[in-house]
Amino acid sequence: MKRPLTVKTLEEAKSELSKYWKPETETETVTLSRAHGRTLAAGVDSKINLPPFRRSVYDGFAVIAEDTFGAEEDDPVELELIGAVHAGEDPEVRVEEGTCVEIATGAVLPEGADSVVMVEDTSRVDEKVEVRRGVSPGENVSEEGSEIEKGKNIAERGQKISPQIHGALSAVGVQEVLVVKRPEVAVISTGEELVEPGQKLDRGKIYDINGRTISDAVSLCGCEAHYLGIVGDEGSKIERLLRSAISEHEVVITSGGSSAGSKDIVPETIDGLGDPGLVVHGLAQKPGKPALIGVVDQKPIFGLPGYPVSALMVFDQIVAPYLRTMSGVPEPKRENIEAEISRKVLAAKGRRQLIPVKVSGGGGNAIAQPILEGSGAITSLAAADGYIEVSLNREILREGEDVIVKLFGGS
Amino acid sequence: MKRPLTVKTLEEAKSELSKYWKPETETETVTLSRAHGRTLAAGVDSKINLPPFRRSVYDGFAVIAEDTFGAEEDDPVELELIGAVHAGEDPEVRVEEGTCVEIATGAVLPEGADSVVMVEDTSRVDEKVEVRRGVSPGENVSEEGSEIEKGKNIAERGQKISPQIHGALSAVGVQEVLVVKRPEVAVISTGEELVEPGQKLDRGKIYDINGRTISDAVSLCGCEAHYLGIVGDEGSKIERLLRSAISEHEVVITSGGSSAGSKDIVPETIDGLGDPGLVVHGLAQKPGKPALIGVVDQKPIFGLPGYPVSALMVFDQIVAPYLRTMSGVPEPKRENIEAEISRKVLAAKGRRQLIPVKVSGGGGNAIAQPILEGSGAITSLAAADGYIEVSLNREILREGEDVIVKLFGGS
Repeated sequence: MKRPLTVKTLEEAKSELSKYWKPETETETVTLSRAHGRTLAAGVDSKINLPPFRRSVYDGFAVIAEDTFGAEEDDPVELELIGAVHAGEDPEVRVEEGTCVEIATGAVLPEGADSVVMVEDTSRVDEKVEVRRGVSPGENVSEEGSEIEKGKNIAERGQKISPQIHGALSAVGVQEVLVVKRPEVAVISTGEELVEPGQKLDRGKIYDINGRTISDAVSLCGCEAHYLGIVGDEGSKIERLLRSAISEHEVVITSGGSSAGSKDIVPETIDGLGDPGLVVHGLAQKPGKPALIGVVDQKPIFGLPGYPVSALMVFDQIVAPYLRTMSGVPEPKRENIEAEISRKVLAAKGRRQLIPVKVSGGGGNAIAQPILEGSGAITSLAAADGYIEVSLNREILREGEDVIVKLFGGS
Repeated sequence: MKRPLTVKTLEEAKSELSKYWKPETETETVTLSRAHGRTLAAGVDSKINLPPFRRSVYDGFAVIAEDTFGAEEDDPVELELIGAVHAGEDPEVRVEEGTCVEIATGAVLPEGADSVVMVEDTSRVDEKVEVRRGVSPGENVSEEGSEIEKGKNIAERGQKISPQIHGALSAVGVQEVLVVKRPEVAVISTGEELVEPGQKLDRGKIYDINGRTISDAVSLCGCEAHYLGIVGDEGSKIERLLRSAISEHEVVITSGGSSAGSKDIVPETIDGLGDPGLVVHGLAQKPGKPALIGVVDQKPIFGLPGYPVSALMVFDQIVAPYLRTMSGVPEPKRENIEAEISRKVLAAKGRRQLIPVKVSGGGGNAIAQPILEGSGAITSLAAADGYIEVSLNREILREGEDVIVKLFGGS
């Protein structure tokens, strides 16, 4: 190590990281039809008038309003039918005094006409149309640009492309949009004992968990997760994988191999990769002692604990907010809920503590059930809906006390 | 038409459809690493013991507990160090009386040893280890199967594969899971006046909206949306596209071309496709008069209105619940919220009415602002967060009245 590193509080760790790296959003242009769910990086103005032409609001007959003045149920006006305009057609017919043209909803109003008589207010006899209700100029007609004028703003920067926004952008013919780029995030599991699920399990080996769990959690933060697999405890292999991960991704996340044991060479490998190297080694909280943060080539490397529920909690607490800033994805709306804690909890003295909990009930009556350390890595991981934070000046939480549960994304 | 069809209430329409078709879930086997977010169609039991071997819980020394009995801070026991076991190794060394083996967290407990002394309770001098705190048999050791016994249930049918469940399934080496199949849904826009966004807009044409909006809404219901494009008002083309859509998808959704105008040939085309053909033509609600439902080859065809916000409301009301049943996706948790209506609304007499609204505020103080019909297709679509239902016996909603807003998915 180039310098001695001491355990830091979460706030100190973030402040240290901010000296070398800040999360930034990048943008990219994508085809609108593939942009569902993405976040707009720029507002969109309409390049066309909508409707793009003067059109009929109903099925009926295009007329000159003046011809229909005074028409009533028992005193209809008779007009000569000289043609028809269907939706999608560019009409060549022209309405002259005393004539009318059949017209469909949404069809172009033909030259000469200034209004539309609804079909239910007419009777047709051969090539004649009886109009039983007069219209005024412009009636039942939608003017060019009356809904959206060319140049009008359709969607704003920062808006998520919902089905409705997608529809509105389609309506004005948008084909490509500038959206916030999904950050590319590398996920690496470290540990000589790890094997990919489904592979042969030799004696002494266990299946990897964190590669899958953390990749999914990264996706839920609006990023592209690239799981690069398992690397053993050999320094040169870790170094090679980390170098390639940094060169091809914007953020690198490792798990395991970060404590002070003889085989935990991840911290020193990161420190040897470049300047400033390792900037945080150990958080003053439980879990988090083996957490680490490095910066190499202006990109952050986050090292999570190996224990799965600890890895997920530390990810959620430290890494997820940075990823969401980069991806433009808002915090999940259900992230924090109030609950009563189901039993007394003794917390670590003088250290912030994260305790995984299972949540039952809801709507003001939620119960948070702490998951005990002894319950094992998998049982506690599968059961955990989120976690509570116990501040460093609290040693006991009373049964029934109100707590805030930070829910894991995807719960 | 083979028989006269009359306008039906929503309930009658559903009941009519249920005579010919019921939504069913199908299942498929997928690789676990691609199953994030999917719904399990069967519970999963562990095929292995976890841990799969007797392992150390801490970094330390594997010992025979009896050798350490009576060891204290000022009266340590000295043991001979005869080897080391790292994580992931299958140890060949055997602990005999008076000896110990260095061991890493998670490593296999070597033969002969029955417990582990934590590294902080020892001092090492050359090939000797001083133990300053005695342990009892089994201390700091995790037995094979102590966390999960072979055959134990890991995840239940109907559970969504969250990051945590994904991790738990990985831990027991699961490589493939049986999940609910995403229904394949075809989406078709009809109308001679429609053009794909980004294409040239000839006079009389407008850009299609519903193809994109409805496809996205279908995806949010956990289905695979296949947008098949725009088809004009030519019967033979509509027939050909519908036939291929039915043969390759489980549900078909069209929009537009379903009212009683002369060019609205979608209903009769559906009716001619097979038995029973068209089963619902028109809903006794506003909007919904042009909505239609057909059944061909035991598969449903839903025809939505052409007006975009109406299409989305009718989709949400009728089609979405069927799609969610098929895909196993639960109703979105935020689907219904309470709000105060911002202004007086006059509703249609004797008909159920759906009114699009924009929601502002929240947390018990939400305001639902009705979107007026005159505000245009795009403006109202982009602004609408959801809709309220006004029952057929209500004609007036008072300003400030409490209403339930059904939120669109993805809002």
